[in-house]
Amino acid sequence: MSLQAPSLPDLRRDVHDAARRARVAARALALLPTVAKDAALQSAADAVVAHTERILAANAEDLEAARAAGTPAAMLDRLALNPTRVDGIAAGLRQVAGLPDPVGEVLRGYTLPNGLHLRQQRVPLGVVGMIYEGRPNVTVDAFGLALKSGNAVLLRGSSSAAKSNQALVDVLRASLISEDLPADAVQLLSAADRSTVTHLIQARGLVDVVIPRGGASLIDAVVRDAQVPTIETGVGNCHVYVHEAADLDVAERILLNSKTRRPSVCNAAETLLVDAAIAGVALPRLIDALEHAGVTVHGGLGADADEADLRREYLSMDIAVAVVDGVDAAIAHINEYGTGHTESIVTTNMAAAQRFTDGIDAAAVMVNASTAFTDGEQFGFGAEIGISTQKLHARGPMGLPEMTSTKWIAWGDGQTRPA
Amino acid sequence: MSLQAPSLPDLRRDVHDAARRARVAARALALLPTVAKDAALQSAADAVVAHTERILAANAEDLEAARAAGTPAAMLDRLALNPTRVDGIAAGLRQVAGLPDPVGEVLRGYTLPNGLHLRQQRVPLGVVGMIYEGRPNVTVDAFGLALKSGNAVLLRGSSSAAKSNQALVDVLRASLISEDLPADAVQLLSAADRSTVTHLIQARGLVDVVIPRGGASLIDAVVRDAQVPTIETGVGNCHVYVHEAADLDVAERILLNSKTRRPSVCNAAETLLVDAAIAGVALPRLIDALEHAGVTVHGGLGADADEADLRREYLSMDIAVAVVDGVDAAIAHINEYGTGHTESIVTTNMAAAQRFTDGIDAAAVMVNASTAFTDGEQFGFGAEIGISTQKLHARGPMGLPEMTSTKWIAWGDGQTRPA
Repeated sequence: MSLQAPSLPDLRRDVHDAARRARVAARALALLPTVAKDAALQSAADAVVAHTERILAANAEDLEAARAAGTPAAMLDRLALNPTRVDGIAAGLRQVAGLPDPVGEVLRGYTLPNGLHLRQQRVPLGVVGMIYEGRPNVTVDAFGLALKSGNAVLLRGSSSAAKSNQALVDVLRASLISEDLPADAVQLLSAADRSTVTHLIQARGLVDVVIPRGGASLIDAVVRDAQVPTIETGVGNCHVYVHEAADLDVAERILLNSKTRRPSVCNAAETLLVDAAIAGVALPRLIDALEHAGVTVHGGLGADADEADLRREYLSMDIAVAVVDGVDAAIAHINEYGTGHTESIVTTNMAAAQRFTDGIDAAAVMVNASTAFTDGEQFGFGAEIGISTQKLHARGPMGLPEMTSTKWIAWGDGQTRPA
Repeated sequence: MSLQAPSLPDLRRDVHDAARRARVAARALALLPTVAKDAALQSAADAVVAHTERILAANAEDLEAARAAGTPAAMLDRLALNPTRVDGIAAGLRQVAGLPDPVGEVLRGYTLPNGLHLRQQRVPLGVVGMIYEGRPNVTVDAFGLALKSGNAVLLRGSSSAAKSNQALVDVLRASLISEDLPADAVQLLSAADRSTVTHLIQARGLVDVVIPRGGASLIDAVVRDAQVPTIETGVGNCHVYVHEAADLDVAERILLNSKTRRPSVCNAAETLLVDAAIAGVALPRLIDALEHAGVTVHGGLGADADEADLRREYLSMDIAVAVVDGVDAAIAHINEYGTGHTESIVTTNMAAAQRFTDGIDAAAVMVNASTAFTDGEQFGFGAEIGISTQKLHARGPMGLPEMTSTKWIAWGDGQTRPA
C-alpha cells in the first residue's frame, strides 16, 4: 500500500464538500444584480493590489521550490509574479467589471397562440470547475469571469503554483466576505494529489461543467475520464495554406506572424501547406524567411514533413511543411491533421477562399489573416476563459456569454394543454 | 469465455467504420443547399409511404417476437406501426422540410478595428449518435432533423424494434441514393449486442455528439461511460407548486392536466407541493380531484410522501405530495429533488411568481401553466430531437438550431497581429 492511499477517500469527500458549498454560493450569485457583482470585482481588484507583498512572498516560495526542482526557465517565467504582473491581474478584474452582464439577457421570446408568454433567458451555469497549469493569473481571471457570469468556481491549479494560488484565493475570499458575498464563490482544491482532478471531473450532479486549460495530455485525460460535461480547450495544430493564387508578400507576412509572434500559444501556426503549382517559387522563399526568423523547418521542397511532424503541436520555433495539390487537397489535409482550432488560407481567388471557409471544419477560419487573431480580446469579447475546440456549447474563444446556460420562462393565466 | 466475446472487437470496428463513413457523408451534407435537403426529405417521405407494406411486415415480425417474449401491452403499443402511423412518420419528414434551415445563419459579426471582417455562423455538428428505445418513429424523426441540419446520424435503436428500424433505414438509404446523396447520412448500428452502445459513446474523434433518449437508467449509463460529448435528455421529476395565493380552480386544472394528460411522458408532473398556509383547504380538494381522475396519491395531509416517492419519476398515474412552508421552501425542495426539467407555480402573487422563476434551476419554469407545455412543438420549433435537462449546449426542447455548432470566419487582406 502506498502512503497516499489512506488519504484518497478524504480527498474525494473534500472535493464533493467543496462542490456542495459552491452550489450554495452559486444559488446566491445567480440572483445578484450586476451592480453588486461589479462592486465585488472592483473590491477584489483593490484587495489584490493591497496584498501585493503577501502574494509575492507566496510566489517567491513557489519559485524557490521550482528552481530547486530544476524547472526550465520558460516555465519559471510563467509562474513568476512581480508588482507589474499583480497590477495586471487586478486590471483584468476591473476590465471584467466593465463588460456587459450576460445573465438575464433574453435570447428569444414569443406569445403562444393560447396566450402563454414564453421567453428564453441566460442564466449562470452554476458550479464551474477549472483545471489549469502554471500561471497563477488564471486563478484570478477565472474567478472574475465566473463571478461576473454568476457562477461559483472550483479551481484546481498546478502544484507548482500552490502557494501563489492559495494566497490569491485567500485574498479573493476575504474580499468577497467584505462585500457580504459568499466566500465559497471561489475555492481552491488541493493540488497535492492528482486524484483531486479525478474527483472533480467525476462529481456528477455537483459540478455543472469542467474547463481544462493546459497541454494536450491534460485535456485528453480530463475529457476521457470526465463524467461531468467538459469543454475541450486550446490544442491547436493550426495551418497556414498558401494557395496558388496567393500574393507571396502577404503569405510571408501572415506565415511569419502566425508562427513567430508567440510560438508557445495555441493559435500559433504549426504547419505550412503550399500548393504544388507554386511550390517551386513559393517554398524556397517562405522557408528562407522562416529560417531567417529562427524557425526550424521540418520537410520542404524535396519531401513533406513526416506523419509525426504533421500531427505535432510544436508550441516552439518549429514548423512542418507539406505540398498539396489545390484547395480541396488542402481542405482534406487540414480536416485530417488539424485539431479544429484555427486554419488560414492565403489567396487572391475568391472561389478558393469561399471553398476553404465552407469546407474547413474548425473553430475559426481565416482568409488572408494571421492565425493569431483567434483570441477573445481580438474578437472583442474583452476577456476569455479559454478557446474551445469542441463543437458543443461553445466553439472558439469563450467570453462571458459562453459561461451561461439558458432557462425557459412561461407566464400564463391557467393554460392547460389539450389532449 | 462467453460465446459473444470473439465478436466484440468486430463490433467495435463495425461502429468505428460506420462513424468514419458517416463523417465522409457529413462533409457532403454540410455543403448541401437547403433546396437539396428539402427535396431529399420530401423524397424520403414519399419512399416511406410507398414502402408501407414492407415496413409493416418487418414491424409485424418485431411485434410477434415481442409478444412471444411476454412484452407488456403498453410497450407493444409503442412498438406497433400501422398505415396511419406510417403516414404520420412521413408527414413528420415533410414538416421538417418546411422548417427554416439553421445552417449558415449568422449569429454575430463585426469588422475589427484593423479591417478584418469577422462573423460567427451556424454549421452542422457533424456526426450525431442517437441511442433510443422502443418507438420506430424516432428512427425517421432523427434522420429528418439530422439531414435538415446537415448532420449524418448513427442510430442505435432497441433490439425489440430491430427489424422495423432496419426496414425504415433501408428505405431512407435507398431514397438518399435516388437523390444522389450519400446513403451513409443514416446508418443503423447493430442492436444485437449492448456493446455497440459503448463503442458509439466512446468513439472520440469520430462522433461529435451522442443524444440518448430513453429511461433514466439508459441516460445515466450513457452519460457516465461516454467519452464523446453527450446531451442528457428527458428525465423529468416535475413539480406543481400551489402557492398560498393560488386560485384553487386554476391549481386544480393545471395539476390535473400536468399529471393526467399523458402520464408516461417526461413533462408530466410527479410531485405536488402545497403551501402549509392553505394545506387544510387545498390539499383535500386537490387530492380528491386527483383520485377522481384515477391518480394514486402518495402522501397527503397527515404526512409527506416518503423520500423515495419524492425522488421518483413515476411515469404513471401516481403522484407524490408534500407540504412546504412558503415559496423559498418550495424552491429549495424543487432544486433538491427535481431533475431540472419543468417546474410550475400556481399563484396570483406577482412577487412569489418572480421569486420562483428566478430561483428555480430548471430547463423550464411555468407560472400558472401546465408542465405539459415543455415540448418543441408547443414552443413553436416545429419538431424536436429531445428535451435537454443539462445546462451545456442546449437546455429544454431541442429543435434544428440545437443540432448545430458554429464557426468563426474572418476575411482579411493581409492582417497580422502586433506583438
